[in-house]
Amino acid sequence: MRFHARVVFYVIEPIAIRKNDLWFTEYQTNAMRLGLRITSILKNIKTDYQQLLVVETEEYGRALILDGALMFTDQNEFTYHEMMVHPLLSSHPDPRKVLVVGGGDGGCVREIVKHDCVEEIYLVDIDEEVIKASLDFFPAVSEGLRDERVKVLPMDALKFIKDHPATFDAIIVDSTDPVDFAVGLFEAPFYRDVAAALREGGMVVAQTESPFVNRDLLSHAFLQMGTVFPRMFLCWGAMPTYPTGSWTYSIGSLGPDPRTIRRSPSARTQYYSSDIHRASFVLPPFIKELLRANLSQ
Amino acid sequence: MRFHARVVFYVIEPIAIRKNDLWFTEYQTNAMRLGLRITSILKNIKTDYQQLLVVETEEYGRALILDGALMFTDQNEFTYHEMMVHPLLSSHPDPRKVLVVGGGDGGCVREIVKHDCVEEIYLVDIDEEVIKASLDFFPAVSEGLRDERVKVLPMDALKFIKDHPATFDAIIVDSTDPVDFAVGLFEAPFYRDVAAALREGGMVVAQTESPFVNRDLLSHAFLQMGTVFPRMFLCWGAMPTYPTGSWTYSIGSLGPDPRTIRRSPSARTQYYSSDIHRASFVLPPFIKELLRANLSQ
Repeated sequence: MRFHARVVFYVIEPIAIRKNDLWFTEYQTNAMRLGLRITSILKNIKTDYQQLLVVETEEYGRALILDGALMFTDQNEFTYHEMMVHPLLSSHPDPRKVLVVGGGDGGCVREIVKHDCVEEIYLVDIDEEVIKASLDFFPAVSEGLRDERVKVLPMDALKFIKDHPATFDAIIVDSTDPVDFAVGLFEAPFYRDVAAALREGGMVVAQTESPFVNRDLLSHAFLQMGTVFPRMFLCWGAMPTYPTGSWTYSIGSLGPDPRTIRRSPSARTQYYSSDIHRASFVLPPFIKELLRANLSQ
Repeated sequence: MRFHARVVFYVIEPIAIRKNDLWFTEYQTNAMRLGLRITSILKNIKTDYQQLLVVETEEYGRALILDGALMFTDQNEFTYHEMMVHPLLSSHPDPRKVLVVGGGDGGCVREIVKHDCVEEIYLVDIDEEVIKASLDFFPAVSEGLRDERVKVLPMDALKFIKDHPATFDAIIVDSTDPVDFAVGLFEAPFYRDVAAALREGGMVVAQTESPFVNRDLLSHAFLQMGTVFPRMFLCWGAMPTYPTGSWTYSIGSLGPDPRTIRRSPSARTQYYSSDIHRASFVLPPFIKELLRANLSQ
């Protein structure tokens, strides 16, 4: 006897949330992680130096991720890039030649070109793939790289700095976290080379992580920079996608006080203003206590 | 033939991380989540109003969580509680009677008692279990509740406020997020009752969430408060465990300008200082644009 053909409808109960549940997760510390829901992976390659990932997030638009650490997202990269650049360039008496160490995405350069007095900008990032990815996927971040004052050099910044003594008015160290090839960027020997690459009255700024977690790192980097620079300053600001949402910027100066404002960027900014400039150097007691030893403010 | 007894050693390859992998995860938005590694759950109950969870985190010490939202951790509750209290009480000409709406944990009260001029403090939280949990698990947060000037009332703050016209010099709305029973705390009718409960020249402060995500919420609450109060101000500050790490505090005033500092807390603060007071009212352009319509600063 042949079986009758039977059509069976398997009825599956509807589930409240039934969509692709894709997440990027950054382990910000061993005990803390940030997750961002993503809709797609746009690029994921191993460069000569690091894993480079570009994803589309639901919350913040596109994100650039290097070795698992979120560098920035389209929607709030402005807070970081504006704070890396404008406190320094708005207070330096006459910044003509500026060097960016790292920062291949071009975010800092985009802010530097808002200062008309700057004549030459050198961007030295060891990883050419970061520059390429930014040009391909982050047009609003990398647009400054097309400015005619900009020279992009994909090479080792440590070597470049050694080869250019007394050359720059301002140096911006837009590094990744101090792991792997970036470890040296948080140590005194590097800051000595940076100081030597500055002209008289030059200033350097470096991102020095959160004041709330890994505090040793901030105080270490600040102390190391302080063994080289006669005047040390710290400013801080919001950065929603970095661990704890607050970020510090350490400034070493061969002369000028970065709290003295001498000019404003010539184009629109979203986070920075002269008032924010002043406010960003106001530190809560718990940060002051951390750095008391060699803070000049 | 009998088999010889054989001893077999099963060698298991060591795994890099082999420990309890316990996490608390807060869905801060639909597309963003914060995870904190935990070592234990100290309390987990359903109160009459919400799910109350106390966990021990590795990163930040103990944490109080209400309905899945992280209220604070031992290590950084100070940023929030100090900013909820000191800008208001340091600027009011003569704050004698102060009301805290919500805030059953006592963190705001601990900061209020640092102002010697305050004579009476009312804490009105609908959920007595929050008060109990704080006394049991967060002695450093709840210590202020033992001050003799404090009256703790576990009841509906909306009713309490209606019953106390022209009574308080300052009202601090330390609410949870605007879901469920806390929705009304972000609307004009509530602010009208708050204004009526204030004495002449009184001020109110309310936490109004992050300026980076759910921005509609901030501008909505600010607008609603602004339909009642003649002068509206916003200050902001760091709060590492809240979404995006930056938090806003909306201040409605019947007279005084909260930027005019008249006194300092009499005991030590970790985040607040007179300089931070002034700096916290400095808003980045992107926040000013959000609120432009009715900002008095």
